[in-house]
Amino acid sequence: MGNDKSVTIAVLGGTGNEGGGLALRWAHRGYPVIVGSRSAERAQEAANGMNATLGREALRGLDNVAAASEADIVVLAVPYAAQRSTVEEVKEKLAGKILVDVTVPLVPPKVSRVQLPEGGSAVEAIQKLLGDGVRVVSAFQNISAHHLTHLDEEIECDVLVCADDSEAAEQVVGLTRAIGLCAWNAGPLCNSVVAEGLTSILIGLNRRYKVPGTGIRITGIPTGQE
Amino acid sequence: MGNDKSVTIAVLGGTGNEGGGLALRWAHRGYPVIVGSRSAERAQEAANGMNATLGREALRGLDNVAAASEADIVVLAVPYAAQRSTVEEVKEKLAGKILVDVTVPLVPPKVSRVQLPEGGSAVEAIQKLLGDGVRVVSAFQNISAHHLTHLDEEIECDVLVCADDSEAAEQVVGLTRAIGLCAWNAGPLCNSVVAEGLTSILIGLNRRYKVPGTGIRITGIPTGQE
Repeated sequence: MGNDKSVTIAVLGGTGNEGGGLALRWAHRGYPVIVGSRSAERAQEAANGMNATLGREALRGLDNVAAASEADIVVLAVPYAAQRSTVEEVKEKLAGKILVDVTVPLVPPKVSRVQLPEGGSAVEAIQKLLGDGVRVVSAFQNISAHHLTHLDEEIECDVLVCADDSEAAEQVVGLTRAIGLCAWNAGPLCNSVVAEGLTSILIGLNRRYKVPGTGIRITGIPTGQE
Repeated sequence: MGNDKSVTIAVLGGTGNEGGGLALRWAHRGYPVIVGSRSAERAQEAANGMNATLGREALRGLDNVAAASEADIVVLAVPYAAQRSTVEEVKEKLAGKILVDVTVPLVPPKVSRVQLPEGGSAVEAIQKLLGDGVRVVSAFQNISAHHLTHLDEEIECDVLVCADDSEAAEQVVGLTRAIGLCAWNAGPLCNSVVAEGLTSILIGLNRRYKVPGTGIRITGIPTGQE
């Protein structure tokens, strides 16, 4: 499914930097993409901007509920404070689908300090809320939005993909590789605590070294063996 | 201090693979190193073996308490199950020193599943136990013992160093770079939850790809700017 370009991807929070960057990259590679937002109008504006960048009508904008309803795979890229309420809002539209959660549980102003939610990762609470009928996958927490939006830039950051359903994990690994990123199946959903927390460490390094977007690479796996 | 080779380093659990690899590397670079173990005899045997590898009397072996007592910097590289008891045993000898904790809170048999201790990281419990008189630093969790013991091998894994005392963190960054590893100040001690958990993800990748030791690299910081 990762390379099946008939799959429609909705990015909730696609008007933000991280969600917008992902939406743009998938559209650029030929996937039908829906930008979701609380406001259908702002979603369409964002989609229009990206279509202008790409020079074709590759994206459209809808409110989050409609976007989730029309998509095969739903990506959640909203701020941590809006994570739970957004999922509750679209819950009925997710049955049988994969939800890819990009949420990083940052607690401003100390965003370079790892502050985990009660119980570990932010994504596990969402899987619990949705139950077994939705396959929740965690991914993309460490990818700098700065890099995503520069389409021609090679992104020097690997993606850790965590899920309890390994088939869903492999689909998201495929969708990630489709936009030129190196992705790894990093194990069960609870392992997402590492990917979520790592973002705070990277933000700290960005500040210390005055760079726009540090990242991580997995080493020790021979090329071609992935 | 990181480059001051008069500093004596004790590695508690230096008879194990990870601790032994670190001890060997520091001794190889000219630091006076003490191998610590519950048994002084086994510690001396391990030290003898490493001295034979190096071709000179660079290490000696002592029981953990004597090793901690004689060292300037104490490295704790024991299994998670022995972490707390070892620290309690040597506590009186650590006053005013830096304790570098290498502990990974693995819970066999599910070692590729991130299973964090109550409250977050394993190292924070040790800092709490020791109080403000000991500067606890977390480091080396992600370095494969396999790579450490091959002295001529370049290790393709960066070290995340976490500490609440930033001067202590910088000293450990220096000691890490002294053995040819790339090290980063990754922020406060609580951020160690990421380094500790990451080891489970790397163990999972080792198994999946049948390789001896995956690792991580931090990207996005220009060479020479570290």
